Amino acid sequence: MTVDSMEIGLQGTPQAALMTALTERAAELEACLDGLLPLQAGLEARLIEAMRYAALGGGKRLRGFLVMEVASLFRVAPACAARVAASVEMLHAYSLVHDDLPAMDDDDLRRGRPSTHRAFDEATAILAGDALQARAFEVLAEEDTHSDPQARCELVCALGLAAGARGMAGGQMIDMEAEGKTLDLGEVARLQALKTGRLIQYSAEAGAILGRAPWQVRTQIAAYGRDLGAAFQIADDVLDAVGTAEQIGKTAGKDQAAGKATVVSILGVDRAEAQARMLCEQSKAHLEHFGPEADRLRALASWVVARRN
Amino acid sequence: MTVDSMEIGLQGTPQAALMTALTERAAELEACLDGLLPLQAGLEARLIEAMRYAALGGGKRLRGFLVMEVASLFRVAPACAARVAASVEMLHAYSLVHDDLPAMDDDDLRRGRPSTHRAFDEATAILAGDALQARAFEVLAEEDTHSDPQARCELVCALGLAAGARGMAGGQMIDMEAEGKTLDLGEVARLQALKTGRLIQYSAEAGAILGRAPWQVRTQIAAYGRDLGAAFQIADDVLDAVGTAEQIGKTAGKDQAAGKATVVSILGVDRAEAQARMLCEQSKAHLEHFGPEADRLRALASWVVARRN
Repeated sequence: MTVDSMEIGLQGTPQAALMTALTERAAELEACLDGLLPLQAGLEARLIEAMRYAALGGGKRLRGFLVMEVASLFRVAPACAARVAASVEMLHAYSLVHDDLPAMDDDDLRRGRPSTHRAFDEATAILAGDALQARAFEVLAEEDTHSDPQARCELVCALGLAAGARGMAGGQMIDMEAEGKTLDLGEVARLQALKTGRLIQYSAEAGAILGRAPWQVRTQIAAYGRDLGAAFQIADDVLDAVGTAEQIGKTAGKDQAAGKATVVSILGVDRAEAQARMLCEQSKAHLEHFGPEADRLRALASWVVARRN
Repeated sequence: MTVDSMEIGLQGTPQAALMTALTERAAELEACLDGLLPLQAGLEARLIEAMRYAALGGGKRLRGFLVMEVASLFRVAPACAARVAASVEMLHAYSLVHDDLPAMDDDDLRRGRPSTHRAFDEATAILAGDALQARAFEVLAEEDTHSDPQARCELVCALGLAAGARGMAGGQMIDMEAEGKTLDLGEVARLQALKTGRLIQYSAEAGAILGRAPWQVRTQIAAYGRDLGAAFQIADDVLDAVGTAEQIGKTAGKDQAAGKATVVSILGVDRAEAQARMLCEQSKAHLEHFGPEADRLRALASWVVARRN
């Protein structure tokens, strides 16, 4: 992804600094991912190609950026933070590959390109997702990720929790179960907290784990991530409702077409946007004990609710 | 699974001791799995039910047994070994759920019951497999698994390697790619080493990691597991060729129907069986530095090639 701050007239502002950082870190992350998913000869080459297709080549890299940005607050070596960022992005990529499958959301378009099962085939997409998940955990536990094995174990445990039945996979299950049902606002909030919130929260928390932050600080960072994730998801639902496929790089109007309850379908666009702004402010409030070094994280919170793609 | 040693007239032999141990450890493992996959309220309950359906209720538990049996050589606390055994069985269960999907091997029968996507639905089966994989890694990294976080990291890394593109998922990809192609014996051996061998090898090696065995000993145990896994797979292919669905608890004659190359299709049943016996002896040879405490592992090698289900 390239984010052109000139386009939106933000030169010299904290938002401009954020845009530059997003672009730079995305490039760093891409290089790291490239190294962690080496091409391989043999009949299994197709699997690696599909993994690389799914994981490389873009997306906003919000999760990876969060890991790297929070880690930098604690002066973590950038190469270590990039590995964890890559791991989270592999996990996220696998979830998109599986969500797009015909048996799930049945989506042909992702990040403006054919989804993995369309570019390859269903079996390859299932396996590529599976192998990306395995690689994500493996990378976290490898020595290069952190000198302290206790930190690596905490990274693995927390990712397992965020990704599994009590996190992302559980949220996706609720999403499937909810089709055709009427969910109230609390149920929708819980669905989204599991489906997308937990992994975004993990991304922030992982930076604090890498930094061996004291428990209380880690909790603040996690709370920042949780509220940021909730704001992000509402903003995403607003974009789904009002954006075009060209803007958002995936099929637009999907939720409404599937009869899915979202914060937008319950509250309407205006009140949903207000809710996202409130969550954005709340997420920043968790950073009150940090100084200007956390300004980019604050700008990120503003950006996720203001973005148009 | 209950294994009735009376049935095959083995009372008082090392084989009888093995059968008893298999039954006892399978029960221990089942209880551990039950505790690691607690039921959950909420709309995601269906996901947990599917995970439990796939992971509990049987199978031979060869992989879990290997972990526990090797760990006992090194006097590892049984509760720790059972957790790692449960983790490997969750990983194995997820792979069966995904392999059985319509887009993959499209199989309606598994362990004598409807496969998970038949008992639930495809989306739930995909998610249940995904969540089982996440839980498998999470359990390995949790403190209760080993007091030394370095050991837990090694368990996670080695499982990632065994399960991912350079292991099980890579093997499954080769298997899909091989349909309709002519593989030679070396290619089939590599396919099987990746698809089933790596995880069986890991199961043995995990016991040695838990026991903090010196590198050389760990390598011997891994070699035992590698040859045992190869023998097991050939025996499985023989059963697929000559057994009935009732005996083997899954659709019989599948490989032939799918035109899949196996050691049996290349060498014929008799020479394949001879090959399995040779690998069995080879696997035992790696245990030469162990005394009678490894007798059950030796008996296990004999059993995997002699079994009829």
